[in-house]
Amino acid sequence: MSVTTATPSPQLFRPDHRPADALRPIRITPHYVAMAEGSVLMESGNTRVLCNATIEQGVPGWLRNSGRGWVTAEYGMLPRATLTRTARESERGKVGGRTHEIQRLIGRSLRSVVDMKALGERTIILDCDVLQADGGTRTAAITGACVALALALGKLVKAGTLKTSPLKQMVAATSVGIVDGNVLLDLAYEEDSRAAVDMNVVMLANGGLVETQATAEHDSYTRAQLGQMLDFAEKGIHELLAAQLATLKDAI
Amino acid sequence: MSVTTATPSPQLFRPDHRPADALRPIRITPHYVAMAEGSVLMESGNTRVLCNATIEQGVPGWLRNSGRGWVTAEYGMLPRATLTRTARESERGKVGGRTHEIQRLIGRSLRSVVDMKALGERTIILDCDVLQADGGTRTAAITGACVALALALGKLVKAGTLKTSPLKQMVAATSVGIVDGNVLLDLAYEEDSRAAVDMNVVMLANGGLVETQATAEHDSYTRAQLGQMLDFAEKGIHELLAAQLATLKDAI
Amino acid sequence: MSVTTATPSPQLFRPDHRPADALRPIRITPHYVAMAEGSVLMESGNTRVLCNATIEQGVPGWLRNSGRGWVTAEYGMLPRATLTRTARESERGKVGGRTHEIQRLIGRSLRSVVDMKALGERTIILDCDVLQADGGTRTAAITGACVALALALGKLVKAGTLKTSPLKQMVAATSVGIVDGNVLLDLAYEEDSRAAVDMNVVMLANGGLVETQATAEHDSYTRAQLGQMLDFAEKGIHELLAAQLATLKDAI
Amino acid sequence: MSVTTATPSPQLFRPDHRPADALRPIRITPHYVAMAEGSVLMESGNTRVLCNATIEQGVPGWLRNSGRGWVTAEYGMLPRATLTRTARESERGKVGGRTHEIQRLIGRSLRSVVDMKALGERTIILDCDVLQADGGTRTAAITGACVALALALGKLVKAGTLKTSPLKQMVAATSVGIVDGNVLLDLAYEEDSRAAVDMNVVMLANGGLVETQATAEHDSYTRAQLGQMLDFAEKGIHELLAAQLATLKDAI
Amino acid sequence: MSVTTATPSPQLFRPDHRPADALRPIRITPHYVAMAEGSVLMESGNTRVLCNATIEQGVPGWLRNSGRGWVTAEYGMLPRATLTRTARESERGKVGGRTHEIQRLIGRSLRSVVDMKALGERTIILDCDVLQADGGTRTAAITGACVALALALGKLVKAGTLKTSPLKQMVAATSVGIVDGNVLLDLAYEEDSRAAVDMNVVMLANGGLVETQATAEHDSYTRAQLGQMLDFAEKGIHELLAAQLATLKDAI
Amino acid sequence: MSVTTATPSPQLFRPDHRPADALRPIRITPHYVAMAEGSVLMESGNTRVLCNATIEQGVPGWLRNSGRGWVTAEYGMLPRATLTRTARESERGKVGGRTHEIQRLIGRSLRSVVDMKALGERTIILDCDVLQADGGTRTAAITGACVALALALGKLVKAGTLKTSPLKQMVAATSVGIVDGNVLLDLAYEEDSRAAVDMNVVMLANGGLVETQATAEHDSYTRAQLGQMLDFAEKGIHELLAAQLATLKDAI
Repeated sequence: MSVTTATPSPQLFRPDHRPADALRPIRITPHYVAMAEGSVLMESGNTRVLCNATIEQGVPGWLRNSGRGWVTAEYGMLPRATLTRTARESERGKVGGRTHEIQRLIGRSLRSVVDMKALGERTIILDCDVLQADGGTRTAAITGACVALALALGKLVKAGTLKTSPLKQMVAATSVGIVDGNVLLDLAYEEDSRAAVDMNVVMLANGGLVETQATAEHDSYTRAQLGQMLDFAEKGIHELLAAQLATLKDAI
Repeated sequence: MSVTTATPSPQLFRPDHRPADALRPIRITPHYVAMAEGSVLMESGNTRVLCNATIEQGVPGWLRNSGRGWVTAEYGMLPRATLTRTARESERGKVGGRTHEIQRLIGRSLRSVVDMKALGERTIILDCDVLQADGGTRTAAITGACVALALALGKLVKAGTLKTSPLKQMVAATSVGIVDGNVLLDLAYEEDSRAAVDMNVVMLANGGLVETQATAEHDSYTRAQLGQMLDFAEKGIHELLAAQLATLKDAI
Repeated sequence: MSVTTATPSPQLFRPDHRPADALRPIRITPHYVAMAEGSVLMESGNTRVLCNATIEQGVPGWLRNSGRGWVTAEYGMLPRATLTRTARESERGKVGGRTHEIQRLIGRSLRSVVDMKALGERTIILDCDVLQADGGTRTAAITGACVALALALGKLVKAGTLKTSPLKQMVAATSVGIVDGNVLLDLAYEEDSRAAVDMNVVMLANGGLVETQATAEHDSYTRAQLGQMLDFAEKGIHELLAAQLATLKDAI
Repeated sequence: MSVTTATPSPQLFRPDHRPADALRPIRITPHYVAMAEGSVLMESGNTRVLCNATIEQGVPGWLRNSGRGWVTAEYGMLPRATLTRTARESERGKVGGRTHEIQRLIGRSLRSVVDMKALGERTIILDCDVLQADGGTRTAAITGACVALALALGKLVKAGTLKTSPLKQMVAATSVGIVDGNVLLDLAYEEDSRAAVDMNVVMLANGGLVETQATAEHDSYTRAQLGQMLDFAEKGIHELLAAQLATLKDAI
Repeated sequence: MSVTTATPSPQLFRPDHRPADALRPIRITPHYVAMAEGSVLMESGNTRVLCNATIEQGVPGWLRNSGRGWVTAEYGMLPRATLTRTARESERGKVGGRTHEIQRLIGRSLRSVVDMKALGERTIILDCDVLQADGGTRTAAITGACVALALALGKLVKAGTLKTSPLKQMVAATSVGIVDGNVLLDLAYEEDSRAAVDMNVVMLANGGLVETQATAEHDSYTRAQLGQMLDFAEKGIHELLAAQLATLKDAI
Repeated sequence: MSVTTATPSPQLFRPDHRPADALRPIRITPHYVAMAEGSVLMESGNTRVLCNATIEQGVPGWLRNSGRGWVTAEYGMLPRATLTRTARESERGKVGGRTHEIQRLIGRSLRSVVDMKALGERTIILDCDVLQADGGTRTAAITGACVALALALGKLVKAGTLKTSPLKQMVAATSVGIVDGNVLLDLAYEEDSRAAVDMNVVMLANGGLVETQATAEHDSYTRAQLGQMLDFAEKGIHELLAAQLATLKDAI
């Protein structure tokens, strides 16, 4: 299973001198916003995503009287999260394709860890708003939203509304890519913009995969490279899962 | 100048035991976002507004070839800035009336302190996004946006792009209202929702007024009450102007 | 209370040679449209606003089963109300910020004179459509809409649907501004476009103020100037209230 | 040419006792709005349509550099033109199918009488806004808009901008229908709502037909009935053409 | 009945050498799509329209509890149905005027042949999507949609849901026009784009007319020409009605 | 590399008795629409997608004067492509999230095989419209669009506009999933709706991967299962690539 992908000394090529398989520094601030049922400011290097969980009574029409709940997500980017200002989607009057794609990914990922029967006919909305964008905003959103979700569900159990928590396990996500022939974990914006292949991996605490999306815009990749990217991603996600747990322990 | 408005011991009726003519604690964090030309996190009690200034080349069509610049503002509220979740305007496909009204107010207020000739054919956009809303978001946005504007223009001067700063003076704003017959400065959400009269005042550093808007939904007010509200507002704005200056001194 | 504002002989500078504190000629034509419950063509100089009141059963969701009614307003401008044609908001697919701001002002003003308990769970919509615009369209809309409202409520009482009229008193509005250092009442378009300060005042028949909005785009104003503007506005509104009453006496 | 359609004594069945082949009273008020290049208030019985003509430099993209002009129309209905209030299209965020259909008809009709070469690269927009609707608003709009167009083009000739008028001849329109088996000219709303067949006819001063649209919702019609409807329509349009000319003679 | 319209040997001027009063080849493929209750691919020369009938429970609000059904239509054009690509209406965010006009025509035409009492509170939606456009798409849509409707209603009768078919008779449509002074039946795109007059005729199997729309953009037409256009249209529609019946006989 | 995934005799569980690793019957009809530069009707079992390629001069703003071309895609679904009717996105006024996600995937996939330098400043739009949907519409769209693209580019070369074809190689796609613990190739709708994991694979003729997206809604998957899904997908795509080539050979 020899891979032609080079593995050079990473100090030479990553802007922040990280090893190829290292995450950026993680900071998860719980209870960032007092108004939400669950709130987390998720920081991964310079990427900063505010993740708020809302629990509402009722479910969308197609689930009514099913006894089952629903989890969905919305994703937004403040105009100056980016180096050049991005026009507001509210001003343009429509949600763009990229936003749609991302919020569908976040929603699916979080649904994979919630027992909808145990949740009952409630809807959880995870609002993920990017305050500052430096690559990996969608995976940071998933990782942070899961903590916000855990906090919100914890409150429901504490309040006696639910006996058992509908959260089956934690889920976290990271990005990985191929830049100049090197597989790199957790791409920052500058690396991401030069990447030949960009991959997002969403993984459960038990190691099960829920999403793997590997995209090549300018080039293609081999199955061996796909394997190495998955190796790096699994390593990173284990660290993210540990950071989530540490946050939750402190927060409760 | 006898006013029938009562001035009871404020400790009795304000939720946070503030005197009737006291502001909430102010915190102005400069450079909150690294991407923007000017960035400020403006906090007034639990109200938290992120104000980012963008400077773009060019002006709207009606100013082209006039040699004059333009200043405008956009205002947004994250879904969970509020106690119950507010649907995103991007999802609803249109900007609401309240948002329009507020961003027009912010834009006018900031235009009053910029020398458009000195700015030249550039457009400054002030994005004011509410992370947490506890009353007074529009006045906090004006006060914070003026600091972000000063930081952004300071960079242009420092970079030699402009010789003299187009910022003529600082501007700040606060709210004042009548609750249970008492004039109160800087209403928090709980007070605001019970107010018979709600007033926003925007004032320059030289004491000139640029906006005074006093609105009664359920009742009406006298000219004497209008006078007392202006007295309180002026006192508060002097403190806000001092806080702005302190921030700018530290930041530069 | 010395004011630095000059009070020159107004004949010298107003296009129509009005005194500084004089309204333009008012004409209020009741029953202009046969289809509406209350209808008024409000003319103030060349400004012509058609105000129609509709009474519908039911209230918005948040008032259901409260036993209380609701009053709201919509404002529109025909494309050729203005010297150069304005594109229709229906064609652009959205209601603009200025329209939103104005219709919110009209709605609040009219709500201040209606006893919502006495109205019961009914909604009154005031449609204010500008046929010709020569300044002061929003204040003409308020003044005219109050007459249309009175006519519509009068019909409900006459028909025995309501025993007592929910209209507590009349409300009227005018604009006032500072042009070339002079305070002027009831600005026409040409004056308005040159004004340094523009103020709208909404006042009840009993002298109570419900809205005062004073805006400076290019300059600022002192509290003394604010006082003189209020003096002029009060004088004008007393004349408007008299004209409303005369119309209602004739109409019923 | 025996027609099975009955021709009873019309006094028996028309609400206003008109003969079957009679128009309602016509009133054409020129210069209704001072701001527009051409303006007419067109009244046909209780139907009242404000028709304003705007002349703008330039043409739509597909005509640029063709040396030819363009004529288009927009149609709107104020919310209380109708007995029960109609929601604004600007609030709904889109122009409805009925509006689209009508403004396309008005545009085509007016284009048929303008020499586009003589007009040159100018666009004429005819805004037709219904203040009160009692049937036949689209045909009243065509008849009124042609007068507004004539007034606007007259000004261009008078000002020396154009040497010869691009208006080749007048055009007018009326409706005709079959109600209870009777062919009736110029249906009022009450008649129109009961009509089995509804027809709009647009005819030039020289008798040429430019639009004939006969629609049966619940039934069908024979060619003989189509013929009788055309007879009535031609009679009515001759009277409308005379009224247009009389207005223009007075107006100039 | 002497007509000044010339009737030259048609071989000289029609691109496909058809006689002036001849239809293009018709092909009606039933059951084109398996998912719909009724489905037809309607081809008229190179014009290809996919007509699908959907039967849904329930009716629009204004018909609820009336015991009556409703029939409506939607019309779309694939981007490359035309020689140069047409932008999608979904991307532009609104349905255009032409689309609105056409789908209203299709809906009215099909409603004329359905007994709404017999249908009961059901809604039939006829989706007419143009795969390839070579003139006459709206009339092909009507002709094809009626077959799809017959197939769908046939299924309801066969399933025992309805005892008697609500389809009273068939309806079909064609276009006719005047090109270079000649009346021509069933215009292809190239002819249509040069036509001085364009007419659509919708006729029932019993010969009753339900829609006649004759439009002149650049010119006008006489009543004699209108008569000749109707003669040609009636001839064509008789052939279309025969083709519809042949299809239905084979399909059932 | 022992996989716990069962591989039972597939005849027992696939509705059409296909082996687990078999594609549905493929039919690729070139030149389906005469108007487009390249046109293909792609059928995969009952899934039917019309793929049309348009070549336009010019590129989006950010590529202007770069000498490089652009390839993009739009995806649509006719209302009755599905068993229950889906509302048109044009009527709802916005493009949905699923549509956005799919057309971004198609666009990226096709861009991977085009040499943008060789294309020059031209834009190719691939319209993929689903006439009938039975699972796998997005992968059928990619496979069909690549043939339409090849046909369109072939015309440019034949016409002498381009010397060398900008198409570097073919690309094709298929879906694969896990149903009841079994990995299955090319899921039909019934299988897809029961799948625990759904994967789309896009692969180049040279075996390079350009997109792999594996999604678990209700469950998760192991790396071994991911491997088996890739094995099946590669087998299927080799067959699709062969079918594409056969079509192109016949078509040219």
